[in-house]
Amino acid sequence: MPHSPASSLPAWFLGPRGENAELLERLVVEALRDHVFWRRNYHPEDGVVIREMDKRQEGYEETVATLTQELIGLLARLKRDAPFFSGRYKGHMISEQTIAAQIGYFATMLYNPNNIAAEISPVTTRLELEVAGQLALMIGYDPARSWGHITSGGTIANFEALWLARGVRYLPVAAAGAARELGLELSVRLPGGRTALLGQLPLWELLNLTNPATLDLWELLWRSAPPDDVRRALADHSLADIGYQEYSRRLALDYGDPLPAGVVLVAATAHYSWEKIVRALGIGSNQLVHIPLDTCYRMDPDALWERTRELARRRQPVLALVSVCGTTEESAVDRLDLVLEVRSRAERELGMTFHLHSDACYGGYAAAVTRKADGGRRTAAEIQASVGADWPSPEWVRAVEALGQADSVTVDPHKMGYVPYAAGAILVRDGRARHLVATDPPYLAPTETPSTDIERFLGRYILEGSKPGAAAAAVWLSHKVLPLDERGYGYLIERTVAGARRFHAALAAADLGLFRPVVLPVPDINIVCYVICHPAVPTLEGVNALNDAIYQRMSLSRPDGAPEYIITRTRLRSPMYDGAIDPVLAQVGVTPEIWKAAPADGLVVLRSTIMEPFLAAPPPAPDHVTGFLGALRRACEEALTLRR
Amino acid sequence: MPHSPASSLPAWFLGPRGENAELLERLVVEALRDHVFWRRNYHPEDGVVIREMDKRQEGYEETVATLTQELIGLLARLKRDAPFFSGRYKGHMISEQTIAAQIGYFATMLYNPNNIAAEISPVTTRLELEVAGQLALMIGYDPARSWGHITSGGTIANFEALWLARGVRYLPVAAAGAARELGLELSVRLPGGRTALLGQLPLWELLNLTNPATLDLWELLWRSAPPDDVRRALADHSLADIGYQEYSRRLALDYGDPLPAGVVLVAATAHYSWEKIVRALGIGSNQLVHIPLDTCYRMDPDALWERTRELARRRQPVLALVSVCGTTEESAVDRLDLVLEVRSRAERELGMTFHLHSDACYGGYAAAVTRKADGGRRTAAEIQASVGADWPSPEWVRAVEALGQADSVTVDPHKMGYVPYAAGAILVRDGRARHLVATDPPYLAPTETPSTDIERFLGRYILEGSKPGAAAAAVWLSHKVLPLDERGYGYLIERTVAGARRFHAALAAADLGLFRPVVLPVPDINIVCYVICHPAVPTLEGVNALNDAIYQRMSLSRPDGAPEYIITRTRLRSPMYDGAIDPVLAQVGVTPEIWKAAPADGLVVLRSTIMEPFLAAPPPAPDHVTGFLGALRRACEEALTLRR
Repeated sequence: MPHSPASSLPAWFLGPRGENAELLERLVVEALRDHVFWRRNYHPEDGVVIREMDKRQEGYEETVATLTQELIGLLARLKRDAPFFSGRYKGHMISEQTIAAQIGYFATMLYNPNNIAAEISPVTTRLELEVAGQLALMIGYDPARSWGHITSGGTIANFEALWLARGVRYLPVAAAGAARELGLELSVRLPGGRTALLGQLPLWELLNLTNPATLDLWELLWRSAPPDDVRRALADHSLADIGYQEYSRRLALDYGDPLPAGVVLVAATAHYSWEKIVRALGIGSNQLVHIPLDTCYRMDPDALWERTRELARRRQPVLALVSVCGTTEESAVDRLDLVLEVRSRAERELGMTFHLHSDACYGGYAAAVTRKADGGRRTAAEIQASVGADWPSPEWVRAVEALGQADSVTVDPHKMGYVPYAAGAILVRDGRARHLVATDPPYLAPTETPSTDIERFLGRYILEGSKPGAAAAAVWLSHKVLPLDERGYGYLIERTVAGARRFHAALAAADLGLFRPVVLPVPDINIVCYVICHPAVPTLEGVNALNDAIYQRMSLSRPDGAPEYIITRTRLRSPMYDGAIDPVLAQVGVTPEIWKAAPADGLVVLRSTIMEPFLAAPPPAPDHVTGFLGALRRACEEALTLRR
Repeated sequence: MPHSPASSLPAWFLGPRGENAELLERLVVEALRDHVFWRRNYHPEDGVVIREMDKRQEGYEETVATLTQELIGLLARLKRDAPFFSGRYKGHMISEQTIAAQIGYFATMLYNPNNIAAEISPVTTRLELEVAGQLALMIGYDPARSWGHITSGGTIANFEALWLARGVRYLPVAAAGAARELGLELSVRLPGGRTALLGQLPLWELLNLTNPATLDLWELLWRSAPPDDVRRALADHSLADIGYQEYSRRLALDYGDPLPAGVVLVAATAHYSWEKIVRALGIGSNQLVHIPLDTCYRMDPDALWERTRELARRRQPVLALVSVCGTTEESAVDRLDLVLEVRSRAERELGMTFHLHSDACYGGYAAAVTRKADGGRRTAAEIQASVGADWPSPEWVRAVEALGQADSVTVDPHKMGYVPYAAGAILVRDGRARHLVATDPPYLAPTETPSTDIERFLGRYILEGSKPGAAAAAVWLSHKVLPLDERGYGYLIERTVAGARRFHAALAAADLGLFRPVVLPVPDINIVCYVICHPAVPTLEGVNALNDAIYQRMSLSRPDGAPEYIITRTRLRSPMYDGAIDPVLAQVGVTPEIWKAAPADGLVVLRSTIMEPFLAAPPPAPDHVTGFLGALRRACEEALTLRR
């Protein structure tokens, strides 16, 4: 690598001024013509279907006129869209897309492959599996043992993770029933390391086998009887077949004690879609247990341990624990290394275990920061030298390295992968788990050649059906141009972190007259949250109204539709932020009791995701930090005036 | 309309020879430049970020070189993709995309709006709701009362339909519990028409309220107590909150008799994803009840009635009935009008009802055939005159018109809407049902301005989160150029039907030497299925192997990778096709008993979806019927030779 990634960066994006327009246009036209000539070269003897004369018919002309006119209408409407490309957009987790992703998507869309099955996507199904392998390597999975694929987004990816986790968690109960029916004596490895006979395990122990032990058991079961018999026996006992209503009845019948309903532990910062997911899966949102946060909005490992002990005492099984790498609101990175330690301790001391999932939908790509070009890891000091700041801490690096130990990880290319929607991804550490949710046929025996099998028909293992091969190609091409290490995504994300830190420091030190910015802690990645206070509005209600009004002035819903800068806002609510928010409330001048008294309102917090890589760049790049502070002050003043 | 749609058709697609390449290229370049100039016009005072000098750095040049080279590599790989554009592709339900959809997608993708929330998709969220309204009108819903949106595909759309259906079906039980807790006496309308007090209804009757009565009850509940109280009370009783495990326990506790598990009735032709869906939702695949088919592969209404009676006798509730409009294998269109009559009779005679869903993912757009330009309906005779064939029958038209009476309908624009992946859609007749799956906040009170509410945050009501606004714009623009009536999609689909009928007749009459084609009944839309027989292979196993080998010769997996024509195949299996398949088996020369004895193998059937509109076109369009028959004969002979 003779040049620095800094000199590559200018070629990665179309640019806020469309600086690379010629490049993108050249590639777009090239891809389109290339596709057209493919069509012409395909059985040239077939002749033309649409004749030149057909193009001179009135209907043809009218259709072209309609198409052109409606397109121009659409283009006009799109001008009211949010300018994600600009440094003036400091709102949600969206920015520009890489040129590679844009051209990869467009070029492939002309072919429109469907990655549900290799038969109708012979090329892009392979690209999808390549991409999954690249992401697996980045987070530290063994690509040969893991499995993954692209989804339409993070919610579906997370849904699949919990769906898989449930399948694994409940398998031993189904296997015990099936083995009984088949007259098999199977041995199984317990969390402590001991081996036991499956048929002699009580329900609690069946629900507390580790994932690897469970998947070994599953393979053993298939090896111990003819496949048709195993299939039939599992269909009599597995949750997927018999459903929850019958399952609950059976547990009570077979084990006397059905145990309390299984719960899902989530970091209190978990995205609202987790509630959606547990509702849809039939687990129920009351079974979602929020683990308290520390004051940096990371899951508190001690609180996790306390909660785990309490659940063990109540003999309430845990389907899965969801840790977050890059929270939606603050980009906080849970100390996954410590969370893993809590699980190990629970296995040792409580005989309790669970599927550990990391929701790295936002933060997953930040793992590229820890990777050298040769695939090795960089130390915190090496990264700090490159960023030019005291980021990341050695603890941050350990937390990110721990991703490789999670049972599943979700990471969205359409967030910090800078590709167009829709592209999420799920990665599973032990790829055998996919067989537990396979559909057609219901229970698939371990195959001789799993990779062929996967390539042939992805639809068998995933929630979705038809899916765009173009999304896979977009991610694939983007990874080719921006490698998942210090040369590509790693450098890109470093720049956004540098920008976010400059932004954070400037906000904290900003002179906004009587307005006083209360800035949340320096983020773990690149989302900055802040609250604006003013002596005239001392109450929580007043602060919320003021910040809501500031947000309104700095969003597209502003009456004139032309905000100088665009931000977004969120609400930090009780009980999720109990304790963690206290230092912020203290700075705002509100007691936790008052904040807790209105849980629906919470604390309104302004939020800026810094995904553009130029915020910390020197001139002639526009100084969007200074510009922002001026705009913020004007918005503050307008907001206060309006309130009066 | 001065011109016929026949003269518009040549402008709808890029064309098998890229005949409209100039048009598409012009629009693509226009859209791209328009976007670039938008960027340049956005705060021009911000100056440039990427300087011309930056483009002369070594890293820049190397990145452009990598990008260009990898793109060329991708384009080369894509040449091995399936040629969906060609008349030689006669396989899966995929064909060309309309130019309008392609350019709509590309133009909008540059802006990359996210339709999860209007805040980050001010333009395309509106387009999505417009599209939902257009589709609602096409199938006969009242757009003011219905609700709908675009999904990533049919599986997610169907998932949402059943998720909504479950929410509605179980609401009365939750409402009864909540009302008891709140000390409310609410009255409710029973299927027979009588009114009763909610608190006095036994469990069976609570689970057999119609959807409108249930949604009225829901509104009544919210009007009868303060919202916070209703929310809290519902959270103590609704399945979404408490989950299945607790729910089952409560039913047993509160009603003594928990009733057998709720079932989902599906046409035996239902897509395999329904199994996936009931497994994921926790309903269980054993609760999927297949309703037998008639010999045209449509759900048999008499069999449905018998099964319904039996379930009523066993007091087993039905969560939903899934009828199909355009089956995946045969494009069969269920007689939804007769299915609706069965439900009415069940309500009258058995006091039993259920959510009625039509899976019109494939066939939904065929409803455009029944629409005049003014929105009125065309008669079967009018359509027949236009098609130039005895299609459709008046019964077909009645079945399609009945879509407007289904509680929910799914229809995939990325199938017969001819738009690029990914775009499915769900439409719900009574839009209030969406509140029952709303997430944040858990139970949303009826709002004053539902439309504003929906526009603001679609993510609240749907399974997915981030989703491409580009997909909505693609469908929207395509509907502008091809209206959902006889001028646009109606005409397009008529031409595919004419082509399919020509293909069907030619196959049935084909001289293939000793090979004998057994053709399945004339399809309800445009998918033709056939089995090739030969005296040398009299057994079912032999027929299956022969047809498998023919498929291999006519697919991209052929050793030389260059099939003359491309088809696909499927397996018709017992018990799904019991009875319905008997006439085909008789022609093949196999008894139903032999076929039933190997349910995993079934009968291998070759399958050709005719989505290209030119198959029935006169010269100079290539004669892909004659060409196909020649290729089929050669493939047959090769397949037989290989077997020897």
